[in-house]
Amino acid sequence: MLIDAFQTGFFDRSGFEALLRGGVGCITVNCGYWEDTVESLDSLARWRDLLRENSDLVVVAGNASDITKATTSGKVAVLLGFQNTDCLQGRIRFVEFWAEWGIRVLQPTYNNQNETGGSCYEANDSGLARFGREAVREMNRAGILIDISHLGMQTSLDVIAHSEKPVAATHSNSASLYPHKRNKSDEVLEALAERGGVLGCALYPNLTGPEFGASLATWSEMVARTVDLMGIDHVGIGSGRRYNPQPGDLDWARMGRWTRGVDYGAGSKDQSSLNPTPHWFKDIEDFRHLASGLSAVGFSPTEVAAIASGNWLRLFNAVL
Amino acid sequence: MLIDAFQTGFFDRSGFEALLRGGVGCITVNCGYWEDTVESLDSLARWRDLLRENSDLVVVAGNASDITKATTSGKVAVLLGFQNTDCLQGRIRFVEFWAEWGIRVLQPTYNNQNETGGSCYEANDSGLARFGREAVREMNRAGILIDISHLGMQTSLDVIAHSEKPVAATHSNSASLYPHKRNKSDEVLEALAERGGVLGCALYPNLTGPEFGASLATWSEMVARTVDLMGIDHVGIGSGRRYNPQPGDLDWARMGRWTRGVDYGAGSKDQSSLNPTPHWFKDIEDFRHLASGLSAVGFSPTEVAAIASGNWLRLFNAVL
Repeated sequence: MLIDAFQTGFFDRSGFEALLRGGVGCITVNCGYWEDTVESLDSLARWRDLLRENSDLVVVAGNASDITKATTSGKVAVLLGFQNTDCLQGRIRFVEFWAEWGIRVLQPTYNNQNETGGSCYEANDSGLARFGREAVREMNRAGILIDISHLGMQTSLDVIAHSEKPVAATHSNSASLYPHKRNKSDEVLEALAERGGVLGCALYPNLTGPEFGASLATWSEMVARTVDLMGIDHVGIGSGRRYNPQPGDLDWARMGRWTRGVDYGAGSKDQSSLNPTPHWFKDIEDFRHLASGLSAVGFSPTEVAAIASGNWLRLFNAVL
Repeated sequence: MLIDAFQTGFFDRSGFEALLRGGVGCITVNCGYWEDTVESLDSLARWRDLLRENSDLVVVAGNASDITKATTSGKVAVLLGFQNTDCLQGRIRFVEFWAEWGIRVLQPTYNNQNETGGSCYEANDSGLARFGREAVREMNRAGILIDISHLGMQTSLDVIAHSEKPVAATHSNSASLYPHKRNKSDEVLEALAERGGVLGCALYPNLTGPEFGASLATWSEMVARTVDLMGIDHVGIGSGRRYNPQPGDLDWARMGRWTRGVDYGAGSKDQSSLNPTPHWFKDIEDFRHLASGLSAVGFSPTEVAAIASGNWLRLFNAVL
């Protein structure tokens, strides 16, 4: 069984069937970027309809034990998350509400600074701000996993230090292996591991770079070097895969309503469209090959199991 | 034990203590009038804080059995409600959300027509509109009691006919006993009773009129004549009492954001301020006298129990 700690996109029944064929027992899905409270509730409502209509294949998970139960009954467990705290509209009490409504992963901010802290794309990273400290404490209390994937380096370090529970970078890679604003410095990765956190290694080509993204073997080599940096207990998978992309979807993720101009997110002017998935990872079913790729670079079966699902399960168990 | 199916205002610990001293085991409280979804969540959050801070005195009730349990443990049970569907912002899926968030009573519309139907103050009552039919069906499904108190006559009749479950006028009186737009015609009261619904007789002076509001004896006489109209199984109490009124509170209830002018709600130009409570019902503790007032006009102990709590419990049991 494999846990993928970050997927996004417009899921449908075929997607869930493909996940099952690919041996994926649990995904964390992104329910929104820039949506305010009501728009986020609309998104939750859509997800709820979708999951209800496909309840023979998929189940919402609230904790680690739900994931294990889903696997036993041959279903995909889904953890719901948002990539931004815009869904709070500045209300600290809404953290608890969202936890009760099933949200299990929240990222303090997405690509732009907000009232919680700074993003990896800001020229000056504010670090964790006043509301951010409140939000971290409240997410700890409410059993929501804090995602630092898109946070700036200082804000990432502050969240790791300030959080009483371990946190995650659900979909980032090591910046010392491939320099990118979305990847994490060794300092962040070491602090993350030290506090019991987990990094989800991304398959998204913008974050692997061409070298590590070239084949299953090179990607597995990247995972192995990340384990060298963080230790075997702190590395998992967070593909960043976008399922069934819709027109306007990428523009919304990148530009939301915050610019009249153009922003490329993790891409660039030369690579502005949705980065195609690697040729060796065209279909969701290809998830089933990841374990053999990891074995091939020298991981033992126990180590493969830790990366594929064990580390996420331990973290979910500690936090949710 | 007495159930008061409608109170509003800014509650505090003293208010809950007074309810207990007055023998009130359950109140339905109004959490908002014109508030949109986020503002309604703010209101819910305030109520939650208040109830949590006073959990030794008060408990949120989700169904009839919670009320009975609260009474056994010497606490006041609180059913949360809104007087308007503005909290849905037109989203049918938010009905289920609000039910899960603890809301047990919803009035399709308050003093103005909205997308669900017409209010008692409109010159032309549209009857139940398209979204109203959807909302009624969804409230039935979600276990939310539909309140017709402020609805227009045609919309009231339509809701009664369209709802698969019995409904309530939580705080209105008989219009044939005291003509007022907020009171209900015999046709509405008969239809309400026929479908198993309950009318909560109001103590609010604007709705009793001076005659029936003059004393406990005259008010009890009004209840007796209402029972003659509807039958003993369909009459309860819904005081409409406003606890601890705050500056601006009445203006918000009456004018919200919908007029630049002045509106008097259930009052009038000559009686524009908050109508004072009757001299025989100054304090919340005076609830404990209601039962003896009802006995004095000839109700048997069984009948007094039905009016004081039994009819509401039966309705809550059927709907929530």
